[in-house]
Amino acid sequence: MPHIKVDPDLPGIRSLLAFSPEPATPMGKLANLLLRTNKGLSMPERELIGAYVSYLNDCFYCYHSHGALVTCYLNDNNRLIEQVRKDYNQADISEKMKALLSIAGSVQKDGKSVTEEQIIKARDDGASDKDIHDTVLIAAMFCMFNRYVDGLAANTPTGLSSYLKREKQIMEHGYGNYIFSTSQPE
Amino acid sequence: MPHIKVDPDLPGIRSLLAFSPEPATPMGKLANLLLRTNKGLSMPERELIGAYVSYLNDCFYCYHSHGALVTCYLNDNNRLIEQVRKDYNQADISEKMKALLSIAGSVQKDGKSVTEEQIIKARDDGASDKDIHDTVLIAAMFCMFNRYVDGLAANTPTGLSSYLKREKQIMEHGYGNYIFSTSQPE
Repeated sequence: MPHIKVDPDLPGIRSLLAFSPEPATPMGKLANLLLRTNKGLSMPERELIGAYVSYLNDCFYCYHSHGALVTCYLNDNNRLIEQVRKDYNQADISEKMKALLSIAGSVQKDGKSVTEEQIIKARDDGASDKDIHDTVLIAAMFCMFNRYVDGLAANTPTGLSSYLKREKQIMEHGYGNYIFSTSQPE
Repeated sequence: MPHIKVDPDLPGIRSLLAFSPEPATPMGKLANLLLRTNKGLSMPERELIGAYVSYLNDCFYCYHSHGALVTCYLNDNNRLIEQVRKDYNQADISEKMKALLSIAGSVQKDGKSVTEEQIIKARDDGASDKDIHDTVLIAAMFCMFNRYVDGLAANTPTGLSSYLKREKQIMEHGYGNYIFSTSQPE
């Protein structure tokens, strides 16, 4: 049960943003800027970083939401997100993405855990300064979202099909128009 | 040395925001909404939560920046921030603030670490749903900022007087007009 009185019909972060709508706008804008662009990293790569960090933070709602988005983008029946959850080093992703997921995993623990060796490896594998920057900020942003959702014990639907349904709408409309509004999907 | 090429003359998060100015706007707005209001929790109480979480995350830059802001607001020569750093249970703060700092400390570890007992204690000590919500979101936001700063190994000035000088300007002008711009203080 949530720690504060929120609309029981809204799942996860959306119930919190409806409770306190003012922060919804900048949080939605930040999510859109970092996740809804293909400049440098692609949208599925960005979502993969977010889903992976949410998995490490054991945030069921965010992991399944953003994992479902990876699946929506790739239309791969959860193949990649399952590979990454089990062991990203064995997943069908580029060496660059493996290096960036390693950095994201360190950010999840603690900013200082990122090592110079990880950065050198990412650069050697083709990562730019912007790729490294975006990876660290996406990972950091999910450390905020995960703690917001679980720190207030927000409602977390357990039926996985509902995540896929909602995320299809995000894929089409972005965060600003959907997840950070209080309306429910059809 | 920072992990990416940033302006060496800008300290901490400001060098990162200058590197990637687009996220600066929503991050500045979020900081302003959560830290620059006295609705419910006061501005120094909000900064105290942020400084405390930054201390737990061992983020030198954010701890000293926001600790300096607490000192600026209270004009107390670092008295309260030092008390809280040593042991907030012995600090000259309300029982409500002690309960909220306990919640913030749990959020710093992991959202799921917040217990029902902590919430009941905070309510018994006078915290509203909004106070609890804002505490969790402020703590979560600093878990993002701290990781952004340290995950990219941003420049961290070691001279503490420079923090007090900068934070006086934030006290007067807020975050949107100052910290998230690329200009330096006089």
